[in-house]
Amino acid sequence: MSDLLHFEDFPVGRKFACGPYEVTKEEIFEFAGAFDPQPHHLDEEAAKKSMLGGLSASGWHVCAMTMRMFADGIILKTANRGGAGAREACWMKPVRPGDVLRLEVEVVDAKASQSKHIGFVTFDCRVFNQREQVALVSMTPIVARRA
Amino acid sequence: MSDLLHFEDFPVGRKFACGPYEVTKEEIFEFAGAFDPQPHHLDEEAAKKSMLGGLSASGWHVCAMTMRMFADGIILKTANRGGAGAREACWMKPVRPGDVLRLEVEVVDAKASQSKHIGFVTFDCRVFNQREQVALVSMTPIVARRA
Repeated sequence: MSDLLHFEDFPVGRKFACGPYEVTKEEIFEFAGAFDPQPHHLDEEAAKKSMLGGLSASGWHVCAMTMRMFADGIILKTANRGGAGAREACWMKPVRPGDVLRLEVEVVDAKASQSKHIGFVTFDCRVFNQREQVALVSMTPIVARRA
Repeated sequence: MSDLLHFEDFPVGRKFACGPYEVTKEEIFEFAGAFDPQPHHLDEEAAKKSMLGGLSASGWHVCAMTMRMFADGIILKTANRGGAGAREACWMKPVRPGDVLRLEVEVVDAKASQSKHIGFVTFDCRVFNQREQVALVSMTPIVARRA
């Protein structure tokens, strides 16, 4: 347990770098086929004619990729009691096949519970692509055990 | 094109029923293994000891399932110009293997663009399980063409 991060390891202002995540066309097709079967996520010709001008990953797929980076970089290293949702996930730029994403998170709120051995931590999450464009922003709250 | 739904088909207050979506243990494992490898989504014994008391789907998986119901029920039937994110997705109840979900959406905002042939529609989304418990709430904006 002592190697795990606890509430006290997440002061407001602390930043973490997570990732990378390499985006493949196969994974874009697989996710979209299961969960978001819109033509601009499934069909390269239709995607070229769409508002986004080419094949792009489902926004929910980008959220899932972000979760994977967040899990590997923070959650699985934390004495964690679970998440509670996401606030204001915004897709800023299309995510394309071949993109390499990284996630920067910063603690923007941290409140200890007075009655329990837990604390509530909120992360500002920003996903960048390899061109240093912000692809996704979101706010992610977690519950972490106190040390 | 005339069979498609347009901005004018989404007055504030109109409701739509989408789904169902049957949740399987195999899909919970597959999604979690790819995107959210926390023990309570991947390991039944670990899940029993966790805060949620049993195996449950990743919250991002629930969002993805919700997107599938929303796509089949509304987006793929709409002259749609894309989405722009999600606001305030909140996971209210665990989603378990064997659950059968349905989605109720209600138009809560609809604004026509003055300069373009589009309009902005915001849906309040509520996912219910077969016990009539609300599993997820979210706000989902879309852009729809005007008729």
